[in-house]
Amino acid sequence: MGKTDPGNYFEDFRLGQVIAHATPRTITAGDVALYTALYGPRFSLFSSDVFAKACGLKLGAIDPLIAFHVVFGKTVPDISLNAVANLGYAEGRFHKVLTDGMTLSAKSEVIGLKENSNRKTGVVYVRTTGADEFGETVLSYVRWVMVRKRDPDAEIIDQHVPSLAQAVSADQLIAPEGLSFAKYDFSLAGAPHAFEDYAVGEKIDHVDGMVVEEAEAQMATRLWQNTAKVHFNQFERAKDPSGRRLVYGGVVISTAKALSFNGLQNAGLILAINGGRHVSPYFAGGTVFAWSEVLDKADLDHGIGALRLRLVASVDRPCADFPDKDETGAYAPGVILDFDYWAAVPKRG
Amino acid sequence: MGKTDPGNYFEDFRLGQVIAHATPRTITAGDVALYTALYGPRFSLFSSDVFAKACGLKLGAIDPLIAFHVVFGKTVPDISLNAVANLGYAEGRFHKVLTDGMTLSAKSEVIGLKENSNRKTGVVYVRTTGADEFGETVLSYVRWVMVRKRDPDAEIIDQHVPSLAQAVSADQLIAPEGLSFAKYDFSLAGAPHAFEDYAVGEKIDHVDGMVVEEAEAQMATRLWQNTAKVHFNQFERAKDPSGRRLVYGGVVISTAKALSFNGLQNAGLILAINGGRHVSPYFAGGTVFAWSEVLDKADLDHGIGALRLRLVASVDRPCADFPDKDETGAYAPGVILDFDYWAAVPKRG
Amino acid sequence: MGKTDPGNYFEDFRLGQVIAHATPRTITAGDVALYTALYGPRFSLFSSDVFAKACGLKLGAIDPLIAFHVVFGKTVPDISLNAVANLGYAEGRFHKVLTDGMTLSAKSEVIGLKENSNRKTGVVYVRTTGADEFGETVLSYVRWVMVRKRDPDAEIIDQHVPSLAQAVSADQLIAPEGLSFAKYDFSLAGAPHAFEDYAVGEKIDHVDGMVVEEAEAQMATRLWQNTAKVHFNQFERAKDPSGRRLVYGGVVISTAKALSFNGLQNAGLILAINGGRHVSPYFAGGTVFAWSEVLDKADLDHGIGALRLRLVASVDRPCADFPDKDETGAYAPGVILDFDYWAAVPKRG
Repeated sequence: MGKTDPGNYFEDFRLGQVIAHATPRTITAGDVALYTALYGPRFSLFSSDVFAKACGLKLGAIDPLIAFHVVFGKTVPDISLNAVANLGYAEGRFHKVLTDGMTLSAKSEVIGLKENSNRKTGVVYVRTTGADEFGETVLSYVRWVMVRKRDPDAEIIDQHVPSLAQAVSADQLIAPEGLSFAKYDFSLAGAPHAFEDYAVGEKIDHVDGMVVEEAEAQMATRLWQNTAKVHFNQFERAKDPSGRRLVYGGVVISTAKALSFNGLQNAGLILAINGGRHVSPYFAGGTVFAWSEVLDKADLDHGIGALRLRLVASVDRPCADFPDKDETGAYAPGVILDFDYWAAVPKRG
Repeated sequence: MGKTDPGNYFEDFRLGQVIAHATPRTITAGDVALYTALYGPRFSLFSSDVFAKACGLKLGAIDPLIAFHVVFGKTVPDISLNAVANLGYAEGRFHKVLTDGMTLSAKSEVIGLKENSNRKTGVVYVRTTGADEFGETVLSYVRWVMVRKRDPDAEIIDQHVPSLAQAVSADQLIAPEGLSFAKYDFSLAGAPHAFEDYAVGEKIDHVDGMVVEEAEAQMATRLWQNTAKVHFNQFERAKDPSGRRLVYGGVVISTAKALSFNGLQNAGLILAINGGRHVSPYFAGGTVFAWSEVLDKADLDHGIGALRLRLVASVDRPCADFPDKDETGAYAPGVILDFDYWAAVPKRG
Repeated sequence: MGKTDPGNYFEDFRLGQVIAHATPRTITAGDVALYTALYGPRFSLFSSDVFAKACGLKLGAIDPLIAFHVVFGKTVPDISLNAVANLGYAEGRFHKVLTDGMTLSAKSEVIGLKENSNRKTGVVYVRTTGADEFGETVLSYVRWVMVRKRDPDAEIIDQHVPSLAQAVSADQLIAPEGLSFAKYDFSLAGAPHAFEDYAVGEKIDHVDGMVVEEAEAQMATRLWQNTAKVHFNQFERAKDPSGRRLVYGGVVISTAKALSFNGLQNAGLILAINGGRHVSPYFAGGTVFAWSEVLDKADLDHGIGALRLRLVASVDRPCADFPDKDETGAYAPGVILDFDYWAAVPKRG
């Protein structure tokens, strides 16, 4: 067993430790086509090279969520192979636009460790950075996961819970180099709604529902070289009470984001990830619905506004009445995702 | 709901109205690979760049059916989101070969409107045009759909049923720029059958059967950004008597076209779509079979002949005895598609 | 039926006959993305263009198994459409690295014919060669299949059983042009294990399990334009005792190879195929596991070592105890594949 990777257990992590993740991955138009086939996104910036160029993006610009999935996938063997649960995300920022042919690699710094009182598990906080082939940062984000201990008696000496921003502040948002919405073509993009048309507190039901099949979930997960056993090993999952493979949470994020086109047609470009919670597991075959809430607004340059949005997804539960959490923080039945992000939106000018 | 797209109802259309459809889409080698994985086509012109070049096609030439699917998909949110049925196609012509990297956009002109006597629905006729990034026409076709009225009492003043050609006449066929079959390699292409070997009235059973799985049907539909709810929203479809998602009709066309290789190995290039009828819905999991009938023949230049072909597909029903419609126009059980098109075929010389 | 391809029956083959297979196929980044989505390989040489370049490979180098699948697929209509069983492989060598944009074509020479004593079937041995668009050999291998006779009474005059190597000898291995592992980055590649760390006789359990869904199996098979009816025609397969479509054996090879990353992280590049046996059919939905055994080692130049490996795959049967064949040659229940190949591995130097 010496040559297979058993993954890290909680006591294997050290504060300040930096882990370089295997395997670098070159992204191509093939990945983009699969992304379209698996989720059905229609945002014009990432559907048309011509549209993207007219907005000042580099040739071959690719949806930042693909960069997120690729980098996340690389961290799995080192960070979450022995995880019990993926607890949250914070401080996610996209520094540079992913482009066709770029090779992404990833590393993570352990920024927090907190053993649970049962001493069987602990929470690991990592700040993960994805870089291109020149070592330039493409994205970075914090995630924290509950990881099993190999030995409950192992002493954990150096513990620390990092202080994390509730949200990326507007002045930290990075618009992609060259981006300008001064000549944004609302008609080609599918809707006239500009930055000015969205109000803080506004809720939007995205109406449409979409099933993810088991084969689609697996393909979407393998494509990002995410190796978590729960997504693929049905033989082992048969012993779980659910008896089912779990769908990678990123599939739910991308599906809900694609559904959000219906109402947020001009908010395709994610600038930052403020937080995210996989409220309940999603199993293939359920119909995913989604709604959004405008949490905040900010003005950037070059005709660009930013909307802070909450994207809530549910399963087999339409969202016309915006299923949400109650005052105790408990979510309505059927809710599976609560995702908080900033998106760039054109201003009317 | 103000920001989500409710689609157009019958009374929203006006004769002569031109609708520019969202979102332009750049086509890449990734789309082509998915097309191969989803349908299994083997026609040499679109399987080998070297073969295509030897026949005078531009580098990166792509099967015209992909252009059709992309353009069709774009029309769905505006034309058929509230459709009851997709009734037919006519006058489809391919003006320019789709190539790798081309960005397609689409617009439709309303050329006919006819309210049904029950006043709950009406038939909308549109002529849809797909263009490249320079505005040059890639394809155009007429389709008509039955669309619900929002308000049965709404008055429809300006009605008109357009006169449509039964078939594209041979002198209107457009061979792709540069195409020549003078040096066509029959051996590499997989069969010796030339234009001269096909006779009007000849029927060909394509023998092979092919299942389309639900995941494949969904991927094929999302890839073209076709958003029709019936293909994805199982939660809603559960209320339908079938209880099933419908497979996008274009999946059946492309599957049957790929099956037709066995017998029409040299007829890969569609020049025109004369008509098409989705006789019955297809549900994933059924085995698709197909047969063809030669309806007409025409001589073009540069060693190119054209065959007018009827492509009939069935489900769980082999086609050795050519299941067809009877004298009353009723189709044999199991038939799901009756598609009429012109294909280019090499002449022996 | 004259225009459809009935495939060859045993009595149709002649010793020395050379069959040029239809249809040439251009390989692109789209195929590579699908390969990743369908199997989840992580070997750095074929995941990162930058890594490949640092090892001296040509730009756009692609996993040799893709060349194998494409060439194999082309042979099916001519060689194994009427096959009862795919019996074995031998003498497989990769002469040139497959690269993005290369167009593969295939031909086979009949090198052996042996009628079975029941006179209903016979074994056909072919040496298949895949070449690029310049006619340069990319790979060649021998395979033998049991093929039905059309007419049991047909006389088979010229019979011959070829003598085949048990394994490609180390001095016949061809390292890709330019390949050097002198600066191999073990850390990026995911494991420190070098050629020197593997011992003949060593067994490695690859731990992970992976389901292949029906849709994935079909897509993987269509992608290589493999038309064998048993993979697609459920209507006909319903009459088989299994009632199921068979999964193309190459799917099992590529799945097991991808799983072998966990333990053979630096052995991604296949140099030769010594043999292979599909011990039992694999049906979609089963969880595939795998283990490997080091059979031999050889030294090449430029920091390159070669490991001869046996890759054994099982279904719904973890491999911690290395399920194998017994002294009678009978395999443990659950074993589906026994594959023997040479892989290039970096030396520590």
